[in-house]
Amino acid sequence: MPLAIQDDYPENLAYCYGCGRLNEHGHHIRSTWDGDEAVAVFTPEPWHIAVPGFVYGGVIASLVDCHSTGTAAAAAYQAAGREPGTDPAFRFVTGSLHVDYLKPTPLGGPLTIRARVKEMKGRKVVVESTVYADGVATAVGNVVAVQMPENFGKS
Amino acid sequence: MPLAIQDDYPENLAYCYGCGRLNEHGHHIRSTWDGDEAVAVFTPEPWHIAVPGFVYGGVIASLVDCHSTGTAAAAAYQAAGREPGTDPAFRFVTGSLHVDYLKPTPLGGPLTIRARVKEMKGRKVVVESTVYADGVATAVGNVVAVQMPENFGKS
Repeated sequence: MPLAIQDDYPENLAYCYGCGRLNEHGHHIRSTWDGDEAVAVFTPEPWHIAVPGFVYGGVIASLVDCHSTGTAAAAAYQAAGREPGTDPAFRFVTGSLHVDYLKPTPLGGPLTIRARVKEMKGRKVVVESTVYADGVATAVGNVVAVQMPENFGKS
Repeated sequence: MPLAIQDDYPENLAYCYGCGRLNEHGHHIRSTWDGDEAVAVFTPEPWHIAVPGFVYGGVIASLVDCHSTGTAAAAAYQAAGREPGTDPAFRFVTGSLHVDYLKPTPLGGPLTIRARVKEMKGRKVVVESTVYADGVATAVGNVVAVQMPENFGKS
């Protein structure tokens, strides 16, 4: 498995329920670069449903959320000409999250989430993420990611 | 515990990961009427975190999602002058979900989510939900809920 953006998050930021590699109960969303997009592949569990056969919208929102903030972090390293994972870490929180559910997302196979940076301005990065099931776009999300203060989450 | 809006969902609609009473792994979000608002109280698990000490935004989005669609269903019964839970069931899916994260939501106690109907038009209900931790609003969500076709989710 190629190194994911989230694999470079420092340890105190690696407990996220959506994408933290150290959260034992979490979704472990992993995002990698693919050309000018970031891509994540996630297979929902059988119980991640809205109604039987279709994926729960809150899980889709979670995929959009973590994949988008991860994409923002990777884009910030790239814009700064820095290697991913180098200190001080770029890490983003979600200022706002918007998801349009285009059609029901079928359960039963992997979902692919593709993200593109739409805008970078100051400490904000706007990321659009599209969720695909079997090649069909079922949801489009937009996240305004805001660079986290360096002391956020540190005790 | 008072009867929740979700307690009246018919069985084939009661497996939602967010609010389905029959989903063994789910969040079991439960919404009740309180005057002209619907209220849900939810205590995140210790692993529902973004960073240690703060609640994960995807869980907050899930709370907004299910509480808002439940509120839409209850409001539709009320507008139709019908008793909640009577057939044919009003049940809503999420057309779009928007969450503004106002500040980090501290982990460690119950969150209260209060929802109001902002607009009802045809098959759409727009619901605003605010998430409170210790009486402080930490997130505001808006959901466009769309009445589900009667055959949705039936095999």
